[in-house]
Amino acid sequence: MSVSKILDGKLVEKNVELKGWLVTKRSSGGVQFLIIRDGTGTIQATVHKNEVKGRVFSDTERLTQESSIIVKGVVKEDKRAPGGYEVRIRDLQIVHLAEREYPLAKKSHGVDFLMNFRQLWIRSSRQTSILKIRAEIEKACRDFLDENGFVLTDSPILTPSSCEGVATLFEVPYFGDKAFLTQSGQLYVEATVAAFGKVYCFGPTFRAEKSKTPRHLTEFWMVEPEIAFCGFDDNLKLQEEMVTYIVRRVLEKRRRELETLKRDLEPLKKVEPPFDRVSYTETIEMLQSAGYQIEWGEDLGAPHERFISLKFEKPVFVHRYPAKAKAFYMQPDPENPEVVLCADLLAPEGYGEIIGGSERIHDLKILKQKIKEFNLPKEAYEWYLDLRRYGSVPHSGFGLGIERTVMWICKLKHVRETIPFPRTISRINP
Amino acid sequence: MSVSKILDGKLVEKNVELKGWLVTKRSSGGVQFLIIRDGTGTIQATVHKNEVKGRVFSDTERLTQESSIIVKGVVKEDKRAPGGYEVRIRDLQIVHLAEREYPLAKKSHGVDFLMNFRQLWIRSSRQTSILKIRAEIEKACRDFLDENGFVLTDSPILTPSSCEGVATLFEVPYFGDKAFLTQSGQLYVEATVAAFGKVYCFGPTFRAEKSKTPRHLTEFWMVEPEIAFCGFDDNLKLQEEMVTYIVRRVLEKRRRELETLKRDLEPLKKVEPPFDRVSYTETIEMLQSAGYQIEWGEDLGAPHERFISLKFEKPVFVHRYPAKAKAFYMQPDPENPEVVLCADLLAPEGYGEIIGGSERIHDLKILKQKIKEFNLPKEAYEWYLDLRRYGSVPHSGFGLGIERTVMWICKLKHVRETIPFPRTISRINP
Repeated sequence: MSVSKILDGKLVEKNVELKGWLVTKRSSGGVQFLIIRDGTGTIQATVHKNEVKGRVFSDTERLTQESSIIVKGVVKEDKRAPGGYEVRIRDLQIVHLAEREYPLAKKSHGVDFLMNFRQLWIRSSRQTSILKIRAEIEKACRDFLDENGFVLTDSPILTPSSCEGVATLFEVPYFGDKAFLTQSGQLYVEATVAAFGKVYCFGPTFRAEKSKTPRHLTEFWMVEPEIAFCGFDDNLKLQEEMVTYIVRRVLEKRRRELETLKRDLEPLKKVEPPFDRVSYTETIEMLQSAGYQIEWGEDLGAPHERFISLKFEKPVFVHRYPAKAKAFYMQPDPENPEVVLCADLLAPEGYGEIIGGSERIHDLKILKQKIKEFNLPKEAYEWYLDLRRYGSVPHSGFGLGIERTVMWICKLKHVRETIPFPRTISRINP
Repeated sequence: MSVSKILDGKLVEKNVELKGWLVTKRSSGGVQFLIIRDGTGTIQATVHKNEVKGRVFSDTERLTQESSIIVKGVVKEDKRAPGGYEVRIRDLQIVHLAEREYPLAKKSHGVDFLMNFRQLWIRSSRQTSILKIRAEIEKACRDFLDENGFVLTDSPILTPSSCEGVATLFEVPYFGDKAFLTQSGQLYVEATVAAFGKVYCFGPTFRAEKSKTPRHLTEFWMVEPEIAFCGFDDNLKLQEEMVTYIVRRVLEKRRRELETLKRDLEPLKKVEPPFDRVSYTETIEMLQSAGYQIEWGEDLGAPHERFISLKFEKPVFVHRYPAKAKAFYMQPDPENPEVVLCADLLAPEGYGEIIGGSERIHDLKILKQKIKEFNLPKEAYEWYLDLRRYGSVPHSGFGLGIERTVMWICKLKHVRETIPFPRTISRINP
């Protein structure tokens, strides 16, 4: 039996067996109050001295925080209990008595200390709530794409060349040669999309980010859909639908976890198509009017994204960035080749970029020219140029960053809590 | 409109528009026969000289293999057409005329040549069939686990220490320190399982395998479920159910692709619980009786697994290997501590191992002893030992290798076709 089923309220007066861990314990008179978690939820259980064998009561007295136990008892409705139900214990078995000093027993630890004990910290209700929401977001991405006819095609992690610039590449010695950890699976889904029409990859990506910021991890997960015969506008529509689908799914299935995090639900409820669209050029004007020192041509930084994001109640697309500020493969705007047909989707409430997407160059000559302009080694991209030699089609796609999406939906201050074992410039443990 | 919908047979006499690529073309009298693929399937289309404008007919004459096109026409039932339906074209638009010499036009290329053009080879009907079955298998794994209450917890790829032995580790320079590419997410799901009860990770794993065999890749995907309060036998039952679920799903949803591969379906239809269980010791006796030179204590190799696999019609568990032949974290058999409570699941038809699983050591003292015996650096495993200090519980899990499962279900000779862009000792491109 699971705690979540008991909390659903259909087991009142039934006998249940729970296998879980002790979160906290207090005693009052002849009653001991236990808070037990089993991975599906947290529930109160009580041991009444006059209702159980002496062994059960004394074992309960011995229990330390995080001890693993199996309890048997009857479900009671109890308005005073958190969640509204409790288990009145008849029998209790200690599976493992945890060592006395639980490293995280005190509430006052700093994040670095907690991260050193990440293997235990993930058990806390805040962390399990965040990570369940993460799992739900990942599932929502997959369900949305699967339901819409996309085929999952895994992109390789070990790659021979860069996708997003050489400055942030992790190099891996590879049998006397060298390889790089992928920064994005995009170039590869551009190949598979010509085989399947609609595809996505979903896996870890890597950036050797030397900056310490609340939004950067060196290892993070991205879902990257790619669509053949798809132009810039249809790409944005797909993104709106997918982000809306994700938010609604979390609101529907992870309400309890959002409440644990004390997440204000109102901003999330407002997420629905269409999202506003502002051009990069308009954005620069807005920033300059507000006193920001930024010139046309520069990429937006976190403070700029934050400013724009706070201007809108829903996620907002910033589109048509200067060609020079973005990746080589983006399609120039036919109406102004200084900018490219790309858009970043900024999450509201100040969160900034969660998606980067674009129409890709499908013309061989333009792509060759761009590879030259960006000083990329042409031989390394011959395979990618082949996609423009044999049945090239207009195609578009985007990459949604899982951790930043979790950070926004959970309204967290730092991205490090959005993944079970975060990796940063200063952390590779545990 | 998609080819798969037309092949479902409900669009006869309807007008459709298809966007896709030309596979082949032939002409006979005043009729041109095109085979078109759009990612969802392949269909015949015909252009009758007396039914279309001159421009359409001459454009069709110009078409090269793999050119991208948009056609409009009427769906006709036609028993002579492959699939039973054809599109009678009224209009045709060339999106991109492929360069004349398609590199894979000839049928006689060797695999290495084809792999050098993997970006194009994946468009062939054999390769798209394999990769669609791969995607279905991956989805089936997730659906099975999600439906059974497992929480996805992504394990890290960059890790500080080894899980499966140092000989096959890829090392990555990490900001002046060093990291290793994960060989398995298992140690990490052992941490998350104490937070969620039932978990899985699903991602790429890496082995710097120096051997060139038809079963090894350096980068491959694994799904790794882990279950708290779960012993050895329940673990095997879960594996039986999951493998059966996967096979049934593929039979149900990817019948067309299995037929394209000319896969004999009868062996797949036999897959259902229970699977046979033979002990390692019995296995050694069977091998010795058959004349194999193998001693008790040695690990099984591919020829041994093949031999055993061919003895059974369904997947078969080989259980209780010698402790010294397996990983340090496996629970010793209480009835004979020389062997551990592990099992490999061998796929039938000679395919061999697709799953490795075990009950894990949950006792702190035994685990410490094992880490010593295996000469592992204790400090690196302190975090992992914590899981046995605070609320340790019996727990079990397993890792299912996606590529080997695809190889078996598709009945392939080599694992390299089971992943979009395979990586081996001699291949990091494209």
